[in-house]
Amino acid sequence: MNKINTIAFDADDTLWHTEQLFQNVQMRLYELMSAYASKREVEAHFHDMEMKNVRLFGYGVKGFTLSMIESAIEISNRTVSATDIHEIVMLGKSILDSPLDIFPGVESALQNLQPDFRLFLITKGDVLDQRNKIEKSNLEPYFEKTIVVQEKNVETYRQVFDEHGIEPTQVLMVGNSLKSDVLPVLALGGHAVHIPYHVTAHFEKIEETVDHNKFYHLDAISDFAGLLRSL
Amino acid sequence: MNKINTIAFDADDTLWHTEQLFQNVQMRLYELMSAYASKREVEAHFHDMEMKNVRLFGYGVKGFTLSMIESAIEISNRTVSATDIHEIVMLGKSILDSPLDIFPGVESALQNLQPDFRLFLITKGDVLDQRNKIEKSNLEPYFEKTIVVQEKNVETYRQVFDEHGIEPTQVLMVGNSLKSDVLPVLALGGHAVHIPYHVTAHFEKIEETVDHNKFYHLDAISDFAGLLRSL
Repeated sequence: MNKINTIAFDADDTLWHTEQLFQNVQMRLYELMSAYASKREVEAHFHDMEMKNVRLFGYGVKGFTLSMIESAIEISNRTVSATDIHEIVMLGKSILDSPLDIFPGVESALQNLQPDFRLFLITKGDVLDQRNKIEKSNLEPYFEKTIVVQEKNVETYRQVFDEHGIEPTQVLMVGNSLKSDVLPVLALGGHAVHIPYHVTAHFEKIEETVDHNKFYHLDAISDFAGLLRSL
Repeated sequence: MNKINTIAFDADDTLWHTEQLFQNVQMRLYELMSAYASKREVEAHFHDMEMKNVRLFGYGVKGFTLSMIESAIEISNRTVSATDIHEIVMLGKSILDSPLDIFPGVESALQNLQPDFRLFLITKGDVLDQRNKIEKSNLEPYFEKTIVVQEKNVETYRQVFDEHGIEPTQVLMVGNSLKSDVLPVLALGGHAVHIPYHVTAHFEKIEETVDHNKFYHLDAISDFAGLLRSL
């Protein structure tokens, strides 16, 4: 096997909590809408709305918030109050303004890896949101480069690897999403580690199970050193 | 004088119409709010809201739309109807979905310049919005690189120039904003051309007038060839 010389990390729900913040806000949306529809109905409506809007809004808190507002108006048959919509706007802002909750073991893992590997952070979403989080994290000095992309697929990884002179077979990508972090990198001949997060965004869910000789599974990033020794 | 070998263009309201779309939507906000406050009051409230939210939202259509919603709720003292808020969401989406209206003479100017200069596009704002517009424009092949930044100031221009081996004194920056396109580039020793747009976003307005031996003024990008011959 080609020796791994580059390790790339996803950020949201791989280095720090994100999805839990979104889920908490969605729970409040379900409560606000409980007069009009069941949790399951609201959830389904909102997910459809997000998928419909992603072409215009992309991924990120602002699009998420606008989709919640649009969903609330439709579900309530245009009777939702301005007060409730105001709360939804404030919930969106609270996500943007919340402190960053970095997973235990992240910084020491990066410290240990930095002398021996080229380290990259490759994250998806609204660039301002992502840049703000990277800055809050104080982890930027560990990375050769931190990169924000709009979608994570074979094409975007290929571009990133090309642009930085990275040989795909020498990459190990680490992330919580099989769809965005694991499968495209395996497709390019790279290695991938899946560290699941306890909740997965609906647009990251896939049915597939992955069985591949360059695919590894970890329960937590703090187990990373052990995995590397075993490779 | 150092010979100019690089020309960098702003995009919104320099290569294509943008601000007019925002202004049209704002006019509709003033109408919707006319039961609660005068146009002048709504305008002032909304501008304050945008400035207050820019730290969290950045520049772009989604943040603009959320600020309109928040403003409408406050101005109406929480009595605005869901139908009106729905219209505001749809107005925001209509900006994102509107066809790109490129200024006359842009493509031929780029065609003429391409053989003799390194051409860059440097634009500010929401990356997804900006990337979508660059793609719609079909102008990307004329540029060595198209770059989206969060703010245009001396620091960001310095970074962009460094990263691409551009000597600032050999750059000519072309744009509609004195604040974002002209002053920072002059400060770095570069040249700048101001091509005003008929409306200016309130956050781009400055009081200053610019008097500098590397500063030029044009009424339209179609006059660009004449300016270059005169340099």
